[in-house]
Amino acid sequence: MTAYATGDFRALTFHDATPRFADGTDTPRAYLERCLETIDAREPVVRAWVVINQAGAREAADASTVRWKAGQPLSAIDGMPVGIKDLLETRDMPTQMGSEAYRGNFPKRDNAAVWALRQAGAVVLGKTVTTEMGGAQPGPTTNPFDQGRTPGGSSSGSAAAIGACMVPAAIGSQVGGSIIRPASYCGNFALKPTQGGINRGERQATSMSTHGPHAGSIEDMWLVAIEIARRAGGDPGRLGLFGPATPPPARRPMTLAVMEAEGWRLLDDASGAVFEAVVDGLRAQGVTVLRRADHPLLESFERALAGVQALTGVITGWENHWGIRNAVATNPDGVSARTKAVLAGAEKLTPEDYRAAILQREELRRRHEAIGPLVDAVIAPASPGPAPLWAGDVAGQPQVKRPTGDAVYNTPSSALGAPVVTVPMTAVGGMPMGIQVMGQPHTDAAVTAIARWMVETVPFVSV
Amino acid sequence: MTAYATGDFRALTFHDATPRFADGTDTPRAYLERCLETIDAREPVVRAWVVINQAGAREAADASTVRWKAGQPLSAIDGMPVGIKDLLETRDMPTQMGSEAYRGNFPKRDNAAVWALRQAGAVVLGKTVTTEMGGAQPGPTTNPFDQGRTPGGSSSGSAAAIGACMVPAAIGSQVGGSIIRPASYCGNFALKPTQGGINRGERQATSMSTHGPHAGSIEDMWLVAIEIARRAGGDPGRLGLFGPATPPPARRPMTLAVMEAEGWRLLDDASGAVFEAVVDGLRAQGVTVLRRADHPLLESFERALAGVQALTGVITGWENHWGIRNAVATNPDGVSARTKAVLAGAEKLTPEDYRAAILQREELRRRHEAIGPLVDAVIAPASPGPAPLWAGDVAGQPQVKRPTGDAVYNTPSSALGAPVVTVPMTAVGGMPMGIQVMGQPHTDAAVTAIARWMVETVPFVSV
Repeated sequence: MTAYATGDFRALTFHDATPRFADGTDTPRAYLERCLETIDAREPVVRAWVVINQAGAREAADASTVRWKAGQPLSAIDGMPVGIKDLLETRDMPTQMGSEAYRGNFPKRDNAAVWALRQAGAVVLGKTVTTEMGGAQPGPTTNPFDQGRTPGGSSSGSAAAIGACMVPAAIGSQVGGSIIRPASYCGNFALKPTQGGINRGERQATSMSTHGPHAGSIEDMWLVAIEIARRAGGDPGRLGLFGPATPPPARRPMTLAVMEAEGWRLLDDASGAVFEAVVDGLRAQGVTVLRRADHPLLESFERALAGVQALTGVITGWENHWGIRNAVATNPDGVSARTKAVLAGAEKLTPEDYRAAILQREELRRRHEAIGPLVDAVIAPASPGPAPLWAGDVAGQPQVKRPTGDAVYNTPSSALGAPVVTVPMTAVGGMPMGIQVMGQPHTDAAVTAIARWMVETVPFVSV
Repeated sequence: MTAYATGDFRALTFHDATPRFADGTDTPRAYLERCLETIDAREPVVRAWVVINQAGAREAADASTVRWKAGQPLSAIDGMPVGIKDLLETRDMPTQMGSEAYRGNFPKRDNAAVWALRQAGAVVLGKTVTTEMGGAQPGPTTNPFDQGRTPGGSSSGSAAAIGACMVPAAIGSQVGGSIIRPASYCGNFALKPTQGGINRGERQATSMSTHGPHAGSIEDMWLVAIEIARRAGGDPGRLGLFGPATPPPARRPMTLAVMEAEGWRLLDDASGAVFEAVVDGLRAQGVTVLRRADHPLLESFERALAGVQALTGVITGWENHWGIRNAVATNPDGVSARTKAVLAGAEKLTPEDYRAAILQREELRRRHEAIGPLVDAVIAPASPGPAPLWAGDVAGQPQVKRPTGDAVYNTPSSALGAPVVTVPMTAVGGMPMGIQVMGQPHTDAAVTAIARWMVETVPFVSV
């Protein structure tokens, strides 16, 4: 049995290291050096990083060391080494978006979230691998628990860097399933905030994408999110992430509902069994867990979710096609066949198709709102099983359809604009599979508190 | 008396030229050449353009000529020469945003609206002057009716190009008052669509900005807007501009309400008198015109508008400061003192200030929604008088506070996300002053129909 299957795996944490920075028995610089050692050891196989700014990181860590020694850290994450998904601009590193068409792109400015991290004293260590322009074409990253498997996408490098214990936190972003799915596959804690919760800065072109933290602990996950939001706020026109400056304490829910969604029929026996074991574990703790048959509003919500993955495809296809089209126009050889196929599908859409999809999404949100008074939160697998095997496309064969896995358990929360936390509390065949907790918009802190209680209270399940 | 004061001024129109393209007595190329002649004659004083792509425009006009001759125009605006505000990216011309910090910026891609114009066959003639990054610092453009006066801003060049009869339509954009105010000062027809009505492409960083057409006629104004929206749709997550493919016919309103807003006390006697004469003209046609004292919901709406200009300042200050900060960081000498002062104010804002402003804006929108059943639309001056004089800042003196005029009559519709059409139907001291018609969100076509009826029916007023 692997460490993962036994539930003994422990990712890197930061929140519990800072007391030693204050008393001088450890320093942010030494913490960083340990991260760099792990990266040296594991990066040749995991390949989570596009670029690492070692000199800049050491300088930032030294400055943090001075602040902690003086008893004046800028925040709870002062000195935390953080990876940044390579879709977000950074003033000191290129932003190449996993795309040949953007090779050498170097705008020399910080995304709002990156700016906020630096203001909070975090050490912006490097850029993590994303799939091509955040889409379907994988990058070189492998799953840290099995190099033959995908780490998931599109936040592949951020998720893998956490699973490989290289850093305590990394920034991802999700349009369809790009935070929660790779986090599930790589044993991360991760938060996809309420839509608009964290200011995306220059990356506002999609109506259902969010930035969010991947982390080795729920404490660091929350701290990274709230320290960004306290400085950069939410997206234009949005109220931003609500919640306390310190990690929400664990809170036992009274009532949860299982969300089956379109992924239910795709769960293999083992993945279904671990999920049911989690439900049993919750009930053993006195939590009421409702199923779709238990209430007509839940059934109505589930029915509204039928087709949500296709709906998400229409919305993101339309919203992304301006950027992809420009990339192809500028550099036709720099865009993969897989991404060009996605573009070709999107070019067939009309504004009326998009309008119809937006109205359908609004309906769906109303169905979700309707179950708000019934339950504290909704739970589901964070992915329809553990990370699938991925050995690359085979020349002459049709391309693999979903090389970074299936976002079927993530498109509901994306379309709903709802906050989700995934926690690593199950293993299937020795590989991580996350359990997600989804709430109503703006309940990010409450969802985090419930997820924390679950992972701290319900026994780890392994099949 | 100038031509403007007599109401005899006629701007350039396109919709009535296309029948001659079809029968061969005129061509898009000949139309373009006439525009270029006017530009040659007037540009040395008006200075509406940053760059003109003469060769590209002639090529596009020739292609359009072929299509019209073959009886196969791509749309009603096939062959229309259009100016593009220099905030929007164009694949064949630089995008310098009126800013030294962006000198030479040339992304070689089309904004979604520009792409749509090309798809519709329009001739993308050149980039029009904007104030610095769309803010307070003026460009070199002068008012086409008096070179000692401002053309308004930030869509200075687009408005002036229409007033100078250089082109039949030009694209502007409005955050606070940047379409409707310069249109008012330059005798344009203009539409600021419902928030989200026209896809802004890469320019999504603000929650209350829209693209919109300036035009010499209400027909061309509508055609440009709808031909873009039919191809590029609305902003991400928005339903886009609703309305017919042909210009809405004039429609007499039953009931209108006067919006006083914060501008009322700023109207000089002459501007107030022309507005009251318009109200009298409407009543003479049998339209009921309500004032704030006539209904408690109108009074409540007016009270909610107190402070809207400051509210707009907080929202746009916060939303714009990321971009301005990056421009200053990259090129400190390339940003004007006026814009740096705006940034300094915005840097004092916190996410909580912004959150409070967004909630206040939502309240305001509810007050506007509440008057929907009372009135067909709201009318007001489009600016608190005609274009003010502007001769530049004086060295050693404090900077002029609003060199491109006061947006006080534009921030209400901007904050409300409401559609507005301004029509040139009054003159004050020989200069144009627009009258605006504002409706509920998504009533753009109905507002256009009312504005059309007003300008076609109510006598021109000159004081």
